[in-house]
Amino acid sequence: MEEHTKNIIQVAYLKFTQFGIRSISIDDICNELRISKKTFYQIFPKKEDLVEAVLQFQLTLEKENFEKIQRNKNAIEALVTIIKELRKITNENVPTFCYDLEKYYPATWLKHQERKTQWIRTSFEDNLCQGIAEGFYRDDLDIEMGAIFHAVSLNSIKATMEMFPKLSFKRLTEFYVEIIVRLITNEKGLKYVQEHTQKE
Amino acid sequence: MEEHTKNIIQVAYLKFTQFGIRSISIDDICNELRISKKTFYQIFPKKEDLVEAVLQFQLTLEKENFEKIQRNKNAIEALVTIIKELRKITNENVPTFCYDLEKYYPATWLKHQERKTQWIRTSFEDNLCQGIAEGFYRDDLDIEMGAIFHAVSLNSIKATMEMFPKLSFKRLTEFYVEIIVRLITNEKGLKYVQEHTQKE
Repeated sequence: MEEHTKNIIQVAYLKFTQFGIRSISIDDICNELRISKKTFYQIFPKKEDLVEAVLQFQLTLEKENFEKIQRNKNAIEALVTIIKELRKITNENVPTFCYDLEKYYPATWLKHQERKTQWIRTSFEDNLCQGIAEGFYRDDLDIEMGAIFHAVSLNSIKATMEMFPKLSFKRLTEFYVEIIVRLITNEKGLKYVQEHTQKE
Repeated sequence: MEEHTKNIIQVAYLKFTQFGIRSISIDDICNELRISKKTFYQIFPKKEDLVEAVLQFQLTLEKENFEKIQRNKNAIEALVTIIKELRKITNENVPTFCYDLEKYYPATWLKHQERKTQWIRTSFEDNLCQGIAEGFYRDDLDIEMGAIFHAVSLNSIKATMEMFPKLSFKRLTEFYVEIIVRLITNEKGLKYVQEHTQKE
């Protein structure tokens, strides 16, 4: 990838996730990088193209992070690490990034959602198979359904928030984590997760 | 309620749930009951008014049925009965009734959904409190969240079917039942449900 392209995507990623997409203009990005708008539009003819590239970049980061988490760990250790990471993320404010995306770039958002759902599904299926083989997950678990439930859970959380606006994102996420843990683990696995995710 | 009104609602309920709303005309209903269209329109000025009345009627039936199930039972016995009832319902074809409702009467549908969600939530909260007191449900369960998860599960099932159209309504419903059982029961409760819901 060309140097300019990479820089634009990285700067846009930081700005978008911090301030949302609508409040960051192409000018802001060009000023930050000291490049001309002409240079920018040669790479990204529309802002939507940049949004799409930022989403791809974000998904790549998430995949890399997830692979790092899984490496040299057994399935339940990876699960515990993910739960802790999630807890950190939901302690921060829910960014306007997602809301802007869904509202102003619905087609891009939908495509991204589908891509991400498929990835979560596949990688969680691997985790489930591994966890069953390692003796921490239920051996009678419906792996396909478990992975799909996990993959759609962010959507379910969002839909529930729309129906019950007083529920916080943090509380719902914690609750979905609990559901998934209770669904997939056997007695030994549940004990392991409970011991390793206790709040300090 | 006037005799005519009651008869119209009952006939419409049977026809709508069997054949869908669109394929049943006001004429069909009037012919069946041997009443004039004038009589009909005096009671229900628009077809939508009848749809609304049918939904109210259906909810009342469901509530009565649920109360009958709960009466003289402990919470986990009621849960087992509901699981068996659900299994019967999902063995039948999913009627076009719901699809027609959502597509052609979105406002009526939404209002009905909200009413039903709130009812499921409240009545399931009662069941959860009872089950905890009776020693079959987890005493550290987040009752509010448990009831909300149950109340929105039909929506979650529908949303999942849209994303994964190959999944059947029956399989998803069975899976959600499993999630809820594993979420709310303690060891003793889980064993009870498993023993009492085994398929013959």
